[in-house]
Amino acid sequence: MSGTWGKNIKLSIFGESHGSAIGITIDGLEPGLEIDIEAVKKEMDRRAPGRSPLATARRESDTFEILSGYFNDRTTGTPLCAIIRNADQHSKDYGDLKKLMRPGHADYTGNVRYKGFNDYRGGGHFSGRITAPLVFAGAIAKQILANKGIIIGSHIKSIEKIQDASFEEIDLNEDLIRKLSYESFPVINKSSGDNMQELILKVKKDLDSVGGIVETVILNLPSGIGSPFFDSVESHLSSIIFSIPATKGIEFGKGFDISALKGSEANDEFYIENDIIKTKTNNNGGILGGITSGMPLVFRTAIKPTASISREQHTVDIEAHKNATLSIKGRHDPCIVPRAVPVIEAASAIAILDLMLDIR
Amino acid sequence: MSGTWGKNIKLSIFGESHGSAIGITIDGLEPGLEIDIEAVKKEMDRRAPGRSPLATARRESDTFEILSGYFNDRTTGTPLCAIIRNADQHSKDYGDLKKLMRPGHADYTGNVRYKGFNDYRGGGHFSGRITAPLVFAGAIAKQILANKGIIIGSHIKSIEKIQDASFEEIDLNEDLIRKLSYESFPVINKSSGDNMQELILKVKKDLDSVGGIVETVILNLPSGIGSPFFDSVESHLSSIIFSIPATKGIEFGKGFDISALKGSEANDEFYIENDIIKTKTNNNGGILGGITSGMPLVFRTAIKPTASISREQHTVDIEAHKNATLSIKGRHDPCIVPRAVPVIEAASAIAILDLMLDIR
Amino acid sequence: MSGTWGKNIKLSIFGESHGSAIGITIDGLEPGLEIDIEAVKKEMDRRAPGRSPLATARRESDTFEILSGYFNDRTTGTPLCAIIRNADQHSKDYGDLKKLMRPGHADYTGNVRYKGFNDYRGGGHFSGRITAPLVFAGAIAKQILANKGIIIGSHIKSIEKIQDASFEEIDLNEDLIRKLSYESFPVINKSSGDNMQELILKVKKDLDSVGGIVETVILNLPSGIGSPFFDSVESHLSSIIFSIPATKGIEFGKGFDISALKGSEANDEFYIENDIIKTKTNNNGGILGGITSGMPLVFRTAIKPTASISREQHTVDIEAHKNATLSIKGRHDPCIVPRAVPVIEAASAIAILDLMLDIR
Amino acid sequence: MSGTWGKNIKLSIFGESHGSAIGITIDGLEPGLEIDIEAVKKEMDRRAPGRSPLATARRESDTFEILSGYFNDRTTGTPLCAIIRNADQHSKDYGDLKKLMRPGHADYTGNVRYKGFNDYRGGGHFSGRITAPLVFAGAIAKQILANKGIIIGSHIKSIEKIQDASFEEIDLNEDLIRKLSYESFPVINKSSGDNMQELILKVKKDLDSVGGIVETVILNLPSGIGSPFFDSVESHLSSIIFSIPATKGIEFGKGFDISALKGSEANDEFYIENDIIKTKTNNNGGILGGITSGMPLVFRTAIKPTASISREQHTVDIEAHKNATLSIKGRHDPCIVPRAVPVIEAASAIAILDLMLDIR
Repeated sequence: MSGTWGKNIKLSIFGESHGSAIGITIDGLEPGLEIDIEAVKKEMDRRAPGRSPLATARRESDTFEILSGYFNDRTTGTPLCAIIRNADQHSKDYGDLKKLMRPGHADYTGNVRYKGFNDYRGGGHFSGRITAPLVFAGAIAKQILANKGIIIGSHIKSIEKIQDASFEEIDLNEDLIRKLSYESFPVINKSSGDNMQELILKVKKDLDSVGGIVETVILNLPSGIGSPFFDSVESHLSSIIFSIPATKGIEFGKGFDISALKGSEANDEFYIENDIIKTKTNNNGGILGGITSGMPLVFRTAIKPTASISREQHTVDIEAHKNATLSIKGRHDPCIVPRAVPVIEAASAIAILDLMLDIR
Repeated sequence: MSGTWGKNIKLSIFGESHGSAIGITIDGLEPGLEIDIEAVKKEMDRRAPGRSPLATARRESDTFEILSGYFNDRTTGTPLCAIIRNADQHSKDYGDLKKLMRPGHADYTGNVRYKGFNDYRGGGHFSGRITAPLVFAGAIAKQILANKGIIIGSHIKSIEKIQDASFEEIDLNEDLIRKLSYESFPVINKSSGDNMQELILKVKKDLDSVGGIVETVILNLPSGIGSPFFDSVESHLSSIIFSIPATKGIEFGKGFDISALKGSEANDEFYIENDIIKTKTNNNGGILGGITSGMPLVFRTAIKPTASISREQHTVDIEAHKNATLSIKGRHDPCIVPRAVPVIEAASAIAILDLMLDIR
Repeated sequence: MSGTWGKNIKLSIFGESHGSAIGITIDGLEPGLEIDIEAVKKEMDRRAPGRSPLATARRESDTFEILSGYFNDRTTGTPLCAIIRNADQHSKDYGDLKKLMRPGHADYTGNVRYKGFNDYRGGGHFSGRITAPLVFAGAIAKQILANKGIIIGSHIKSIEKIQDASFEEIDLNEDLIRKLSYESFPVINKSSGDNMQELILKVKKDLDSVGGIVETVILNLPSGIGSPFFDSVESHLSSIIFSIPATKGIEFGKGFDISALKGSEANDEFYIENDIIKTKTNNNGGILGGITSGMPLVFRTAIKPTASISREQHTVDIEAHKNATLSIKGRHDPCIVPRAVPVIEAASAIAILDLMLDIR
Repeated sequence: MSGTWGKNIKLSIFGESHGSAIGITIDGLEPGLEIDIEAVKKEMDRRAPGRSPLATARRESDTFEILSGYFNDRTTGTPLCAIIRNADQHSKDYGDLKKLMRPGHADYTGNVRYKGFNDYRGGGHFSGRITAPLVFAGAIAKQILANKGIIIGSHIKSIEKIQDASFEEIDLNEDLIRKLSYESFPVINKSSGDNMQELILKVKKDLDSVGGIVETVILNLPSGIGSPFFDSVESHLSSIIFSIPATKGIEFGKGFDISALKGSEANDEFYIENDIIKTKTNNNGGILGGITSGMPLVFRTAIKPTASISREQHTVDIEAHKNATLSIKGRHDPCIVPRAVPVIEAASAIAILDLMLDIR
């Protein structure tokens, strides 16, 4: 199984890249919530393809239709289903994919898992396109969180070897995070961003691709969200973040680097300021024992280079059951990282909202 | 909520560090399974405290009693519950913890989450001690996997800045992995291991602590395990691995480093050898599209330095609601990494078994 | 929450009576299953309104569109979503329902539950119309079961005080059950059925309604399906059967009447015939200890009279917060029982399939 | 699987009749709850065996030990596990049960389900004894509900053909319900109760058994609890009630009898009294559209005669695979109904609490 997630907010996702429609059902939304449809569209647009020379040429308006759970411009509290019709499909580009397994893609593993019956066109249900409904759901979750003052923002921490500044080095104020959340290529240092975009255009010309790291922060989270063990904030967040195709790692706070510190360096000492308990450092990224501490929640997601590249690659032909070569002809992103940003934010908004509803 | 996990194998964990007993109920085990009790004890011993100068002086035999689900030396198929009585408790060591929040620990967040009613002694339900039942369950899962030829092994990839070799650099043969799985301080290069242990003893003398990285491999996994999206192998594994206290990051295959590669470098090209489809490289760590590829499943877990250190630290007194200092007197591990190894293996064995049961 | 159900087969249902579409996502179907679309349509037609003078005049073709999970005329194994557009809506018939609570309906409880934000038109998400997607899913489940030789059939055991024969009194052969499953008004004794239909037309003229009891049998179920306690066949079946609007009771085997027997009468004695273990009687309805015995699974479902009647009724006006009277103008069934039959069969097919997938 | 239940309150049950201990883990309890241990014991005593000539002679004190989740006389909010050691086992009474399948019991179906590896002694995990932990959990749930003014009470509606009065015929006041909830043989009419008890003693002498019907009411439930479809009050309640061994039917309000009414009779008309919306009748048993209406929630549970009777019965020997006869020697209840009462109340308390936690 693959398509359901959540405890208090239950998601059910469906669709294939070249099927008739993709969509999501969200169960557990509070009744009476006014959804800012324009804001949802804006989030959808951040992810939508065909918006920039950095992205795939496939052009999808990603127009959604809400089928249920929404009445008189408010949520009803019953399951809300939204679908997005697929439009600009070039299915014939994918004819060979039935037998030639694209390296780095799920063609082969999907074929084994589903005994050859999966829709292989454009990656089918494995396509990054299926994250569009997730962004839809996340956009609603973001609004609910925003109503509580909680803000989620990200920047592109790195593209290949080019680094942006880190959230650790700067003042994490709401204005900055909000500003980042509107940008199509969010970075802290504009010059790093320029270099990154230049690199992406270059690898595109080279028929190659690059990956990167996204750093995300959630501000104004109350302390006490999450649970020990199986419902830790890290467990819950990572389970949905790893649902996003191309994700290969996640780390919280100092993450892997915390393993190179001494305890006396890593421990975040507590202090009281203006009657509020804070920590001097935030090496734990706002989470202690699986529960939020009230400090900014910080995590980083590693995104691999787009698996689709136009260069010839070695692979296997599973029909002939022999070695072969493949040149992928479909349209694809030279770098998926900018489009992954809104998906990561959406997924984390949903995870946080779901955990908050545990607290009574 | 915190204590339940799984789809086909359902775990229910309970207990506090200084309560009368800790334990776990495992639902969904196949009937008729002979459990090698000695092998379970060996796994429990790998995690048990008081075994080495590298570890805490708290001595617990971690003797388990199986209360149900086990009859005539075989599983019955109905829920199997095992408990471990707590023995060597020095609860008075923890008197201050009611009000003085240990930095890096869950004292503060647990207090907020549970409105001050949580058992604070020794970290209560947040204690690493609660991983003992997880190792029990994992030892059974390991046996079930071993019956199918699947082997899980780990080594300590780094302690603070001291590095062992990587699984990437060596031949991943079953003998090596099996050998590692019996060692109390598993490393590839003995000299790295010596240096690591020396460092741990040194920081112990310095009243400090260190963390590290554990690298785990699962050999002989069939292809086709896992699902896209919410039930990806990465989602499922990370959700249980992050249940382990002190975990701050997880990455699969090349992990974060894959983000610095080009697509042409990162893509694992397929080929056929002896009629089996393999990939030339394994940058994706044996997982594509959330599903196993048949290549070794490789992941790394970042473990932070033990939060308990004997040095004086700044903190807050939540009763007086003011700044304070704290010197932790309880016994603790200068480095939790060696004892985390069997827990990570246990958790991953359970996650993999749970996913395998999805496939019919 | 309301819209998700199942363990191995996960359903996610959505929609409102007068919204744009209703639908269902089915996750966990095996890949490669050829669906007999005509057979699905036939099941949908059995439930569809406007087919008979016994039913509501609302005419819906209940044409479904499969959006995902279906490729080259077979299931892909990934989530299958189907939607049904609403067509023949007379929403203005329901204008008063915003404030006048229909007795016997969910208008009032839905208003409280959803704080007045639920879609009240035609009962909204509470409408019996939402069972159409359930019949869709059940039609697929029935086909999967039929491939294993398992047959589900029902008859109308009673309408008001008019009784049909009981499954207990007759020979439960496959031919009869199959024959019943094609009929729009399935009864064992044609004359009882005639009397029932006459009564329904009479109460319709009287602006009143009637209910009844549906008796269902599942033949050729293997023994060993289900589990003790929380996953008993009765628990699983009843949880989905009570999802069907208007259901007020369920009983298995002899049901409530078994409470009037002695143990020596109620116990189903075992014997061996042609090497197969059977029971002489089947008072337990094919279930012992929550698990199928291999005998026919028999249960009865009590359906209340349609709550919508055209007679003037006393009620409350929740806007004015005072007593009021109401005459319902919408179209409605004088008796919902015949249309409930395919829904009950669909729900039980899904429940049984879900439990069968537990057995490995 | 069999042992887990619930959404907000998660139960995990384990144990066998003749194993070392039985128990339950309850996850999701609010922190800081003072448990009235004496009241829990009283509930346990209502179910415990060996208390009356009407019940089995097996004498178990059913003394529970709380292992976790309880600190300084209050719940911690983390998983609460309690175990009950088995004491008075006569396992040799059950030697034959390995091969001779008791009619009406789960011996045969359990053997098939668990491939012969289940603990057959005393019914093993299928034993009614496993309901003791459920009563423990229910006793806590009852206290939480009582803190909100919600009261659960039952009476024995019938034993075999002897009827008590019905809740429908009397004034459902709190005092009566509370009084019933303390009695070991709760009835409305003392004389009916006397006749019932006389009958039970008589059938005991006849080496036979009887069943009956339990009628339960929940008073002071707020309106708006529950959800349409899969989380209807009926779905949730029935799924846990059918977990109780020997249950063969459940009905709400008028239940099966509502099917013999006209809509104009069955519909519960609304009216306002003292500013509160009520219904004149309560044929729907306090539930409309799966959601509580604020009227008393009424349901009846059909309990079959104890399957264990001392008379010789026909059965099969599954080792020799041939017909055989069996005389059950173990101690058993001539009528399980009185001991089922506290179990039904416990189960319904848990179900209602779980649903109430959905409402925010």
